[in-house]
Amino acid sequence: MPDSLPGSCACAVMTAFNQPLAVQSFAMPRDLAPGELIVRVELAGICGTDVHLHKGQLAIPLPLILGHETTAFVAAMGASDTKDWLGRPLSVGDRVSFTVGRTCKECRYCRVYRLPSRCLKRQAYGVNTPCAQPPHLLGGYGQYHFLHADTAVFKLPDDLPSEALVGAGCALVTAVHGFERMRMSWGESVLIQGSGPVGLAALAVAKESGGRPIIVIGGPRERLERCRRFGADLTIDIDEVPDPQQRLRMVREATDGLGADVVVECVGMPVAVAEGWDLCRDGGKYLVLGHYGDAGPIALNPHVITRKELTVYGSWGSEPQHWVAAIELLRTRRERYPFHELITHRYPLAGVNEALAAVASWQTGKAVIVPNG
Amino acid sequence: MPDSLPGSCACAVMTAFNQPLAVQSFAMPRDLAPGELIVRVELAGICGTDVHLHKGQLAIPLPLILGHETTAFVAAMGASDTKDWLGRPLSVGDRVSFTVGRTCKECRYCRVYRLPSRCLKRQAYGVNTPCAQPPHLLGGYGQYHFLHADTAVFKLPDDLPSEALVGAGCALVTAVHGFERMRMSWGESVLIQGSGPVGLAALAVAKESGGRPIIVIGGPRERLERCRRFGADLTIDIDEVPDPQQRLRMVREATDGLGADVVVECVGMPVAVAEGWDLCRDGGKYLVLGHYGDAGPIALNPHVITRKELTVYGSWGSEPQHWVAAIELLRTRRERYPFHELITHRYPLAGVNEALAAVASWQTGKAVIVPNG
Amino acid sequence: MPDSLPGSCACAVMTAFNQPLAVQSFAMPRDLAPGELIVRVELAGICGTDVHLHKGQLAIPLPLILGHETTAFVAAMGASDTKDWLGRPLSVGDRVSFTVGRTCKECRYCRVYRLPSRCLKRQAYGVNTPCAQPPHLLGGYGQYHFLHADTAVFKLPDDLPSEALVGAGCALVTAVHGFERMRMSWGESVLIQGSGPVGLAALAVAKESGGRPIIVIGGPRERLERCRRFGADLTIDIDEVPDPQQRLRMVREATDGLGADVVVECVGMPVAVAEGWDLCRDGGKYLVLGHYGDAGPIALNPHVITRKELTVYGSWGSEPQHWVAAIELLRTRRERYPFHELITHRYPLAGVNEALAAVASWQTGKAVIVPNG
Amino acid sequence: MPDSLPGSCACAVMTAFNQPLAVQSFAMPRDLAPGELIVRVELAGICGTDVHLHKGQLAIPLPLILGHETTAFVAAMGASDTKDWLGRPLSVGDRVSFTVGRTCKECRYCRVYRLPSRCLKRQAYGVNTPCAQPPHLLGGYGQYHFLHADTAVFKLPDDLPSEALVGAGCALVTAVHGFERMRMSWGESVLIQGSGPVGLAALAVAKESGGRPIIVIGGPRERLERCRRFGADLTIDIDEVPDPQQRLRMVREATDGLGADVVVECVGMPVAVAEGWDLCRDGGKYLVLGHYGDAGPIALNPHVITRKELTVYGSWGSEPQHWVAAIELLRTRRERYPFHELITHRYPLAGVNEALAAVASWQTGKAVIVPNG
Repeated sequence: MPDSLPGSCACAVMTAFNQPLAVQSFAMPRDLAPGELIVRVELAGICGTDVHLHKGQLAIPLPLILGHETTAFVAAMGASDTKDWLGRPLSVGDRVSFTVGRTCKECRYCRVYRLPSRCLKRQAYGVNTPCAQPPHLLGGYGQYHFLHADTAVFKLPDDLPSEALVGAGCALVTAVHGFERMRMSWGESVLIQGSGPVGLAALAVAKESGGRPIIVIGGPRERLERCRRFGADLTIDIDEVPDPQQRLRMVREATDGLGADVVVECVGMPVAVAEGWDLCRDGGKYLVLGHYGDAGPIALNPHVITRKELTVYGSWGSEPQHWVAAIELLRTRRERYPFHELITHRYPLAGVNEALAAVASWQTGKAVIVPNG
Repeated sequence: MPDSLPGSCACAVMTAFNQPLAVQSFAMPRDLAPGELIVRVELAGICGTDVHLHKGQLAIPLPLILGHETTAFVAAMGASDTKDWLGRPLSVGDRVSFTVGRTCKECRYCRVYRLPSRCLKRQAYGVNTPCAQPPHLLGGYGQYHFLHADTAVFKLPDDLPSEALVGAGCALVTAVHGFERMRMSWGESVLIQGSGPVGLAALAVAKESGGRPIIVIGGPRERLERCRRFGADLTIDIDEVPDPQQRLRMVREATDGLGADVVVECVGMPVAVAEGWDLCRDGGKYLVLGHYGDAGPIALNPHVITRKELTVYGSWGSEPQHWVAAIELLRTRRERYPFHELITHRYPLAGVNEALAAVASWQTGKAVIVPNG
Repeated sequence: MPDSLPGSCACAVMTAFNQPLAVQSFAMPRDLAPGELIVRVELAGICGTDVHLHKGQLAIPLPLILGHETTAFVAAMGASDTKDWLGRPLSVGDRVSFTVGRTCKECRYCRVYRLPSRCLKRQAYGVNTPCAQPPHLLGGYGQYHFLHADTAVFKLPDDLPSEALVGAGCALVTAVHGFERMRMSWGESVLIQGSGPVGLAALAVAKESGGRPIIVIGGPRERLERCRRFGADLTIDIDEVPDPQQRLRMVREATDGLGADVVVECVGMPVAVAEGWDLCRDGGKYLVLGHYGDAGPIALNPHVITRKELTVYGSWGSEPQHWVAAIELLRTRRERYPFHELITHRYPLAGVNEALAAVASWQTGKAVIVPNG
Repeated sequence: MPDSLPGSCACAVMTAFNQPLAVQSFAMPRDLAPGELIVRVELAGICGTDVHLHKGQLAIPLPLILGHETTAFVAAMGASDTKDWLGRPLSVGDRVSFTVGRTCKECRYCRVYRLPSRCLKRQAYGVNTPCAQPPHLLGGYGQYHFLHADTAVFKLPDDLPSEALVGAGCALVTAVHGFERMRMSWGESVLIQGSGPVGLAALAVAKESGGRPIIVIGGPRERLERCRRFGADLTIDIDEVPDPQQRLRMVREATDGLGADVVVECVGMPVAVAEGWDLCRDGGKYLVLGHYGDAGPIALNPHVITRKELTVYGSWGSEPQHWVAAIELLRTRRERYPFHELITHRYPLAGVNEALAAVASWQTGKAVIVPNG
């Protein structure tokens, strides 16, 4: 362990669902093996999924350091010749980000089905990596983060601000993955249900894919304004247009009369799905992108899928190559999609509970923890 | 009108939902325009959809002559140089079948979206073609059938028995269409939910597509025996294995432990869909093929689609090229898929209500009306 | 025939290959049947293919009125309730364009294979529609044009200048079709071989599809400047960089080191194909878009396709829905892709030979005939 | 090193192109690391590619032990808990096979493009793994074979004879990969050019995929007889029908008049490609499967690709999951595709030059070396 590293590290720990997180101190890992890294956290994004996790909507092990949207600086390296996922040499001080999912590369999903996002032994920092045992530092809500040798680390280009990456968050790589599964063509009309981080990310990818027009149903007003800045051709405020039939009429009017070619669910509330099927033209595509949390079953009519000849796609998490695409998108299209503007709230580590509450109540654009701030 | 045609024609007419059909006499159409045909019905299949229509599960106009699975002989031609859909000359006496759906070729679905099965003005013989006005004879449950000039008529090859075509019925072209939308690869494991006509048709198409193993969940026992004759590698009798968890275990055991690559819903009961999603491996494909009737919404969890990264396909009706494929399949693979064996019950026109009741209670393989028998 | 139409019409006629076209006068068609139209030509684009046709590179019947990129005004209608391809009512005076290809809707390509661009009986105005017999007026190089009832006519929106449509020409619908066959994803790197009309159209579609970066190899300098205005990220002037190895290095440098994900051939010279395969990364896509004329075989090594795991796509002509897409693209993205700027030269009908010569020598952007100017 | 292993091992070594191979003795590797294996070779197939390699058609390093189609018995394990690629525990004595290609899992092809068959650092046993340095035993033409820890090893099921696997050889996994890239649908007509091992493998995969009819052009007569046993519906003997125009007529007659939907090149002679494009219907698919060796360029007309709207696919080598598919195919469809019958000639190690000569002159079905026989 380099001298420059402190002997201990403060982290915000979730010890029980629906209870306040507590800042605790952990011993700094020692004796890094080749490929292992310790990184000093710069920004730790608070994802909507963190709120779901905090509510206990997924079965995850505790105690846990949340945080899976992180930029950081390399602080210690197990070997001096470690490279990032694209083969670029890493050095102490380099600014990096990393995929949170680590896969076994041995199970049938990793090997035969080429679906590593469903690896049977998938480990996701900040999600299912409890912190009771060393190396402890396995989530973003802390001063330092330990990275296993098989983590996909990305050295960040100088012309990519950390705020852009964390502002886009895991929503963007999720959207990149989802659109890869669904595939759309330029010129298709796209309706996005939801104007939060996932909706905004889907909007950017739909825009890049040549979607036209792109319509967003959501709220509140400020989020829809941001959607228009990101390129939405039409936004429908769910508070101003509470009647689904009227929303349907508005969408049809904007899309040749029969509904959108592509509808992307980015709300996370199951009730949106039935409306989304209605908003889709016959033969259209529907991408369920926002249902990471299990909010339980709702009334859905499979006859609609048959009669309308819909294709419904699901997508979960992301793979490292989606990070490559997202980083390039953020870097080259910064002006078109100013994701860095999303970061509206910054909290010190001690403010983590306040931060979670703000995100839960949709009061923020994007909130970040600045643990070394 | 040729001298050989009688002046009137007996047909079974549905005048009200859930009421017995009545045999009525209609005047034979006269003065056929070029391309129009009158055909003498040989076999009129009774589709499960007819039962749904009879129960009023779709909004259709009455009075109506049901029947959309028909073989017949050309009895009169509006022009002597009429050709079938593949360009082969037709003559009086030729044995033919025909697609029931006629499309406008002008709406956005026909023209821009290349989805004629969702034509906004789709006319389907025996489904939404009421018989009150001339030419009256617009369904299969009658002695004669009138065919508009834009009907896709197929001259039947001599080595294709009518019983095979009607035995396969519209289930086969529906399955051909559904698998075209879904696309599967050889070597994928396939689970079929349902062992009725649609399930059997899906089994045949899955088998042709190289599915391995092919598993059918259904019943009763005789139907599952037939599925095995058609090539199912494993059948699970829903009466013998009433516990969904046990069925899940059996399917996983037969499919490398994680579920089927492809699951095809051929039951028509919404409750099957939730179980079907469970039976599918992560990243798998789910084809909703059996939900022609609107049996209403059920509890479904969209989180499952997201988490398991499923792709769910809907497919409705068929297009003429699916008939080309189905006819070739029936002709060349007769021994492998003996669809002609399905026809277990034959009824005269007067027995139509008895026939419908038998189909509704799943007592038959396939029942046909022989209106000129 | 309305009183307003003259009794005769001047057209430029090709009576022999490689000989000057002659302006001749034809009788105006009379007694239009329902659906038939006579349109007064506004702009008749000169396509590079016209040059190839004039050289006799395709076997076509003579005498012929060339011209397959036309805007015009409805001058006479066989029936007052005629609609355009999208169902909008047409009136005398409406500004329209139309697809030149008319298909039989009966052959195996039209019906079974869903490939109407290869209809066995395809008629293309200005290409294989000789003018010796009435209705004579079957090409764009004339004052009036006769349109059969099955022509796909498009009423042009007021916010779409004719110059944009003719400036884009058949190159744009060809590119729309080609990219539909190939399908690319946003974020893929695209190399376009050729900076003429087809290259520029491919550039626009690649840009809409989210290609990044987009590289054009071509010349001369002015054309490459226009490519950059249309959004090319890098242009390589074939005069300045005559060495293919250096071009390969430049392309690799701009595309992560291994070549472009997508290469689009828009040159029409066979020699470009071997270089194009080199410029494509392994596993990449190659679209042969520019080989309408048959310039004969060249030396190509199929081992390259195997070893590099390339996929090579061909695409021919277009279908009406590609016009829908092209018109919408031109209308909504006028500022991004100023195709109207391409029209650099206007000729009266009498200047047709001068016009063809100018196009043949690549001296023009896009040249148009203004036959009523 | 277990006592049971001899101290040295005899192998056939290629020290120069076009020169006889020499049997040499190498020291047995010692001190295996975890995951490393030594296997005792049972059967070493002689692939047509070995002939090409021996002729120097690919730039490969010498000296080299050829042989990349091998079954073997585990003789020594670096760690007792080593598993095969599907996670099954391995023990000394287990019968196994393995993929010859080992990939770096770090380059852009491995990581970003998901195209490991084009790994920039791909090592292929028996192809580019010279034997001068320890561990020497890196090809199949020897008594023992060393396997690196990252080799994809497959424990062979008891109901799969080694003769079936080696009889199918690398041709089968190549075909599995090629058809995965191309994707065909059941009911499509397939023409296979070539009746050697690659052609036979393509035939089996096309048959499994539901191709109908399947036509093979090739020779000599015995090979075509075998193709018919494997399910070809029609074979055309190139000796009996030397005129390409007549072959074209025969293919069209068997395929609805316009050519085959799918054509698969399995000849390896470039001249076949131009004929293959002719034999394909417009809009059809062409898979270049047989061009592993670089036989140089030929005259090809890219206009044909454009005009016929062909899609041409290349495919190189295979990935481990193609082995999973191939092994399952061989195991479950042994009676339909009796690949074990292909092995017509067996040679001891000392007969290796005789064996290569026999394969080069197409005198054999499949020849194998039995180095411990």
